[in-house]
Amino acid sequence: MKIRIAIAGYGNLGKGVECAIRQNPDMELYGIFTRRSPESLKPLTGASVYSIDEITKHKEQIDVLIICGGSATDLPKQTPAFAEHFNVIDSFDTHAKIPEHFENVDTVAKASGKIAMISVGWDPGMFSLNRLYAEAILPNGKDYTFWGKGVSQGHSDAIRRIEGVLDARQYTIPVETALEQVRTGENPELTTRQKHTRECFVVAEDGADKERIETEIKTMPNYFADYDTTVHFITAEEMQKDHSGLPHGGLVIRSGKTGLNLEHNHIIEYHLKLDSNPEFTASVLVAYARAAYRMNQEGMCGCKTVFDVAPAYLSVQSPEELRAHIL
Amino acid sequence: MKIRIAIAGYGNLGKGVECAIRQNPDMELYGIFTRRSPESLKPLTGASVYSIDEITKHKEQIDVLIICGGSATDLPKQTPAFAEHFNVIDSFDTHAKIPEHFENVDTVAKASGKIAMISVGWDPGMFSLNRLYAEAILPNGKDYTFWGKGVSQGHSDAIRRIEGVLDARQYTIPVETALEQVRTGENPELTTRQKHTRECFVVAEDGADKERIETEIKTMPNYFADYDTTVHFITAEEMQKDHSGLPHGGLVIRSGKTGLNLEHNHIIEYHLKLDSNPEFTASVLVAYARAAYRMNQEGMCGCKTVFDVAPAYLSVQSPEELRAHIL
Repeated sequence: MKIRIAIAGYGNLGKGVECAIRQNPDMELYGIFTRRSPESLKPLTGASVYSIDEITKHKEQIDVLIICGGSATDLPKQTPAFAEHFNVIDSFDTHAKIPEHFENVDTVAKASGKIAMISVGWDPGMFSLNRLYAEAILPNGKDYTFWGKGVSQGHSDAIRRIEGVLDARQYTIPVETALEQVRTGENPELTTRQKHTRECFVVAEDGADKERIETEIKTMPNYFADYDTTVHFITAEEMQKDHSGLPHGGLVIRSGKTGLNLEHNHIIEYHLKLDSNPEFTASVLVAYARAAYRMNQEGMCGCKTVFDVAPAYLSVQSPEELRAHIL
Repeated sequence: MKIRIAIAGYGNLGKGVECAIRQNPDMELYGIFTRRSPESLKPLTGASVYSIDEITKHKEQIDVLIICGGSATDLPKQTPAFAEHFNVIDSFDTHAKIPEHFENVDTVAKASGKIAMISVGWDPGMFSLNRLYAEAILPNGKDYTFWGKGVSQGHSDAIRRIEGVLDARQYTIPVETALEQVRTGENPELTTRQKHTRECFVVAEDGADKERIETEIKTMPNYFADYDTTVHFITAEEMQKDHSGLPHGGLVIRSGKTGLNLEHNHIIEYHLKLDSNPEFTASVLVAYARAAYRMNQEGMCGCKTVFDVAPAYLSVQSPEELRAHIL
């Protein structure tokens, strides 16, 4: 009997989940639930589509619901609402609001007896795990998270809101010299500007004032003002040809000391290089869907994060196989 | 109330544990248990030393016993024997015998109601975890483990057994071009020779036949015959000056594909660069000692590996703190 997964929300992340499920022989896609008119939606794999308003009618057929909405407005409402009826997973990534989201979801999931996993993906997610493991192993140390090279959708959107801009793509890039300095074990104090640069590709309207656009980007508070930013104006054709992907990635590095007099240094480095940010995030969600199902089968309930999941729950292999082949 | 840790066995690993405990404010070292005469042993930190034969007399004072013996003959006997009375941890690293060791230890620990964690360290240990996580996330892919640059003690010992050799140190070194090929996402098939080279530093007796020694090393089955090996003859002073440390490390890399037509590639890379192999292994053991204690406090028992431990158990931080600051 396969684990029956449903998807709520069919953007880039939902499509990624749809594809990822096919790589897991112990799972099947039950269907996609949408706020749009179900007939208007044409899934990549020919999956069934239903209205999100009718999802509770399918309660008995769904083992885990993967919620693929946005963190700003969708997930704070959807995750607690769906946790009343389903084991759920989301990729809530507003770091500052995780404690609040956790409490809201935990109350509902404990009452319903379901597992609700939040903030699953790569950051929060795999990067968080690596920060935790590395800090637990090397308490006397310092960790660094670098993002990129990759497309930041929030920053791209911010540029698009500037007058005269038709389209934009923003890449976050780690500063190589900062990385090298961290890897030496010096534990440097690095400013925002020293860690990342921002590179922007912009399609401007005909006749737009490019100098003004460039200045508006470079001085935008929070988004760009604290960084060394470069702006390139390109054509719509170049944008389509060279910047249509959503690559991303980054590194978590911890440098720490051991020994009687802290004479030995150690570097733990976790590095992701992703051709598709949403497809990788989706792949993490699907692995944790397996864990959510198994943990609920064992009687566990409530809100969980990646910190609460024993790794063995994620693997299609049995504990015996894992010990024999992977340990 | 601090977690009271005891150490069984006082070699490099035991010394590493002794130092690591001092970096963890929620722990204290209860004492060191040895097969040698307790008076003969002078711990780095002035810890108490007891005879291993009397360890059960200290049963009520020890929360977790970290067993720092060797995998060949010590741990197969010690870990099951001590699991009858204590929560225990070992770093059993004979990969092929892990299933057998697990079964032996599990039977005892289930009967005694204790937690017995086996095969904790970096390989098996952190590398195993990274193989599991990466495979669960990217089922359609291939993983590669590279070791080094670092000292292999087994290979160094093998050289020391050759006639005319006074001392030897062997470094295992990953082949850079193989690493680069893996990072491109090509998923190459790599032979033993293509993945690692071996570099040997040898102190020979006066008048020894160096040519014969070099040939014996390079043709030694299992240890060197399948590798490109270089041999350097050096003086005892050079050995002491340049090769007295025990650095090690390595990489686990998984390369996998996602997307409707597997059009996107992803690279997950975990990299360790360790100045002291035994001190890093000890640091992992100590973090898992915290987990063993907490899991047993919650009523769990039996044999566990790193795959069975939810990451939150490893951290000195509370679940609330972890969600607020690390997730």
